[in-house]
Amino acid sequence: MLDRPDFQNALRYIFEEKIPYCRSLGLKFSVAGGRAEVRFRKQDFMLGNSKLKVLHGGVTASVLDSVAGISILLKMVEVDPKSDLETQLREFARISTIDLRVDYLEPATAEAFVACAIVTRLGKRVANVQMTMHDDAGKCVATGAAAFALRAPRTSSVS
Amino acid sequence: MLDRPDFQNALRYIFEEKIPYCRSLGLKFSVAGGRAEVRFRKQDFMLGNSKLKVLHGGVTASVLDSVAGISILLKMVEVDPKSDLETQLREFARISTIDLRVDYLEPATAEAFVACAIVTRLGKRVANVQMTMHDDAGKCVATGAAAFALRAPRTSSVS
Amino acid sequence: MLDRPDFQNALRYIFEEKIPYCRSLGLKFSVAGGRAEVRFRKQDFMLGNSKLKVLHGGVTASVLDSVAGISILLKMVEVDPKSDLETQLREFARISTIDLRVDYLEPATAEAFVACAIVTRLGKRVANVQMTMHDDAGKCVATGAAAFALRAPRTSSVS
Amino acid sequence: MLDRPDFQNALRYIFEEKIPYCRSLGLKFSVAGGRAEVRFRKQDFMLGNSKLKVLHGGVTASVLDSVAGISILLKMVEVDPKSDLETQLREFARISTIDLRVDYLEPATAEAFVACAIVTRLGKRVANVQMTMHDDAGKCVATGAAAFALRAPRTSSVS
Repeated sequence: MLDRPDFQNALRYIFEEKIPYCRSLGLKFSVAGGRAEVRFRKQDFMLGNSKLKVLHGGVTASVLDSVAGISILLKMVEVDPKSDLETQLREFARISTIDLRVDYLEPATAEAFVACAIVTRLGKRVANVQMTMHDDAGKCVATGAAAFALRAPRTSSVS
Repeated sequence: MLDRPDFQNALRYIFEEKIPYCRSLGLKFSVAGGRAEVRFRKQDFMLGNSKLKVLHGGVTASVLDSVAGISILLKMVEVDPKSDLETQLREFARISTIDLRVDYLEPATAEAFVACAIVTRLGKRVANVQMTMHDDAGKCVATGAAAFALRAPRTSSVS
Repeated sequence: MLDRPDFQNALRYIFEEKIPYCRSLGLKFSVAGGRAEVRFRKQDFMLGNSKLKVLHGGVTASVLDSVAGISILLKMVEVDPKSDLETQLREFARISTIDLRVDYLEPATAEAFVACAIVTRLGKRVANVQMTMHDDAGKCVATGAAAFALRAPRTSSVS
Repeated sequence: MLDRPDFQNALRYIFEEKIPYCRSLGLKFSVAGGRAEVRFRKQDFMLGNSKLKVLHGGVTASVLDSVAGISILLKMVEVDPKSDLETQLREFARISTIDLRVDYLEPATAEAFVACAIVTRLGKRVANVQMTMHDDAGKCVATGAAAFALRAPRTSSVS
C-alpha cells in the first residue's frame, strides 16, 4: 500500500488540502524511503520576530505535530495494510496527540525547512514518535517527542 | 509599570500587531489581575479536522508558547521594572523558548479560547512557565510547561 | 472507599512496602483532603552532589512519577469505586507511565520533601497528571507533567 | 583529553563512586566511540512491580538524566579541552538539569540495560540532549530529551 502512487496521492491530498491548518502553513507531504517528509517555505505570517526573520516557535511545534501524525499513519499501513484505499485513509481519524515536546535548538531563520519522524513504538492504543526539523542548509533546528492515542479501529463499514 | 495603560497598550500593540504569527492567529492580549491573558476565536484555517471542527494541536501549542513568553515579560516588569517604556519593551527580545511541552486534555471544539500562564521561576538565564488553555465554557482543553532562555540584558542605549 | 481507613491502610502498605523502589526511597504515603501526598526524607544515597547536598534529579523524577501513579488510583476510586477492597487495589496494576516531564526549579537541598499531584484528565485509556514537589520550607523545587496508560480493567475475578 | 586513560578513569571514579545516587544504582560508566555509555544490572530494590519484575519508571528517568549529564561533560571536553585533568573535571559542577522528558516504550523487564545520549546542541548557557536506554537484548525500552543549564565557567584557579 505504501508504494502505491494512488495511496500516496490520496494521502498528500488529504494532508495538504483537507487539513485546513496544514494547508494554511503550506505544508508539502512526500514519502521518501518509506518515511514521511513534510516540507514548507517560510512565509511572512509565520514569523515570531519580523526583524530577525525567525519562525515563531508555534509554527515549528505545528509542523512537528503534523509530521508525527502522518508518520504514525504510514507505520500503520506498513504494519497492518488495509485492502482498500478508503479504509486505509479512515485510519487517520484514529490518531490524536496526547502530548508533545519540542526542543528548539537553533533560531529557524532559513527560507525552507523539512521535518521527518520516527515511530519508536506503535502499540494498540498508544504510539510514540520522535521528530526532527532541519533547515535547507541541513542544520537541525528542532527536535521533538510525542505520544499519540490510537482510538479503536472502526470495523463496521461506515459510509 | 504593569498598571500603566501606556505600557499595556504598547505591549498589546507589539503582541497583536508586530508579531506576525500572533497576528495571523488573531491573538488578543490583556492583563487581568497582573497576569497575561491571551484570547482568540477559532477560525476555519486553524482546524486540524474540518468535520470535527477541532483546532489543530499546533495552534494550541502556538498559543501556549505565546502566552508563556509574554507572561515572562510581565514577570520581568514586576520584578525589575525599567524606568522607561522603550527599555522595558526591549526586554521582550531577550526571551526565547528552550523547550515546550503540551498536554492535550480535550478536543478543542469550542468557538473561543483563553490561555494564561504562571511563571514558576524567573532566574537570570532561565525561566520556567506553566500554561493552561480553557474554552469559552470554562473547560481546560490543554496544559503546558516550558523553559525559556533569557539572554543577557542590553545595558547600552541602542536606538 | 476513599475515606475508609482500611482502604487507605492497604494502599499505604502496598505503596510503602510492596513497591520495592518506593520502599528503598522511604516514600511515605498519606491522603490529605482526598489527595495523595508522598513525603520522604533526604538520605545520603539520594544525593547527586555530596558537597552541595542536593538530591539527584532522578530521585525527584522518581517521586513525581510515584505520586502521579497513586493519584490516578485515588481518582479512579473517586470516579468509579469498587465494592471490595481487593478489586479496588487491583486497579493499581492497570496504570503505567507513557511519558513524564520534570521541571527542576530549585536545587533540592532541604532535608525533607512532599509531593502531590492533580489528575487533570481521567479517560478510559489515558490519564493526564500534573505534579509538584515542595521542600519542608514550602518552596516548590520541581513540577512535572505525565501521561499514563490505563489498561482495560480486569472484569473476571482473578485470585 | 577524551582518549586519555587517566581522564576516563577519573571520570569513571567520580561518576561511579562520588555521585552517591549513581553509586546506589550501581551505574557503570564507559566511553565507547567517543560517547558515554552507562550500564547497570537490575536489582530487586529497583522494581516498580515485584511480580512483573519491571523497573520502576523513576530508575529509568534517573539513568537517562545521569547519562545525559556525563555526555554533556564529554562534549565539553571535545569542544573545549582543558589543559589539566582537575580543571576539566571541575566542569562537571557547571551542569544542572533544567528539565527532562522520558518516553517509556516497553516494560523494562530485562536483567541489564545500557543507556547513551547525543548532545544535540551545546551552547554557552544551555545544552540539549537526547537519550536512549536499551535492554541487554538490544530492545529500546525508553527514550528521553533534556535541557541542561551550564553555569558560567570558573576562570579563577580555585584549589
